[in-house]
Amino acid sequence: MIEPQVKGDEWFMAKALEQAQLAFEAGEIPVGAVVVAKDKIIARSHNLTEMLCDVTAHAEMQAITSATNSLGGKYLNECTLYVTLEPCIMCAGAIGWSQLGRLVYGASDDKRGFMRFAPEALHPKTKVTKGMMEEECKAIIQDFFKSKR
Amino acid sequence: MIEPQVKGDEWFMAKALEQAQLAFEAGEIPVGAVVVAKDKIIARSHNLTEMLCDVTAHAEMQAITSATNSLGGKYLNECTLYVTLEPCIMCAGAIGWSQLGRLVYGASDDKRGFMRFAPEALHPKTKVTKGMMEEECKAIIQDFFKSKR
Repeated sequence: MIEPQVKGDEWFMAKALEQAQLAFEAGEIPVGAVVVAKDKIIARSHNLTEMLCDVTAHAEMQAITSATNSLGGKYLNECTLYVTLEPCIMCAGAIGWSQLGRLVYGASDDKRGFMRFAPEALHPKTKVTKGMMEEECKAIIQDFFKSKR
Repeated sequence: MIEPQVKGDEWFMAKALEQAQLAFEAGEIPVGAVVVAKDKIIARSHNLTEMLCDVTAHAEMQAITSATNSLGGKYLNECTLYVTLEPCIMCAGAIGWSQLGRLVYGASDDKRGFMRFAPEALHPKTKVTKGMMEEECKAIIQDFFKSKR
């Protein structure tokens, strides 16, 4: 008998990393995200700023729009967003409006991350876990910029 | 002979207010925006969060996406964004990524505005003018919330 696969934070972050890999292959800064509701992925996305020629097309923005479409409501208070990189100010602001239940991110972004520049952006009830699969999440970004040099 | 109309900040903010009025009539929190390049409006938008059931559908977000589509480039460094209400954290972050040349806003938003919560969100080169047609911009929001009570 095959045991049912237990889907925990690492499993979902690995899915976000798969999205980041798709971004990498498309020449986009490799950031990926998934939104999970009741242990099920309801949205997957990756950065599309180059393809859409749109600075607002970050993985998280698309994930929020896609997840709310999927749920038919504006709020994500019962959802977890997994994203490979610490959200920027814009994305943290959007996450705040969405009243997200839980945010899990991988690599920190000291230059652009919201923790430094907009620490009050999230809804006060949103739980935050940082550093999930941090090394893998950091490595894919570093590899991308190395490949561009 | 009819004198050519001089289009200044008030003329463009009046156009943003027209957008806010459209939002009001649609039952949306009445915020409107226009993007101007070389004295020409290249994008008009208003808040659509209710209609799209999407917390990211603020007037400014759509104005940025629409303006960059119009210009065919990701950056708005030669543009002015007129918006009736002080941008929130999310929108200010997006304005930062767009490297907007100039931001002109009407009413201040002490509860949600970026000036308090993310003062470094904008690109350092972005010029900011606040309080443009402030009374009109504030009045339409106040009227909206009064009508909802």
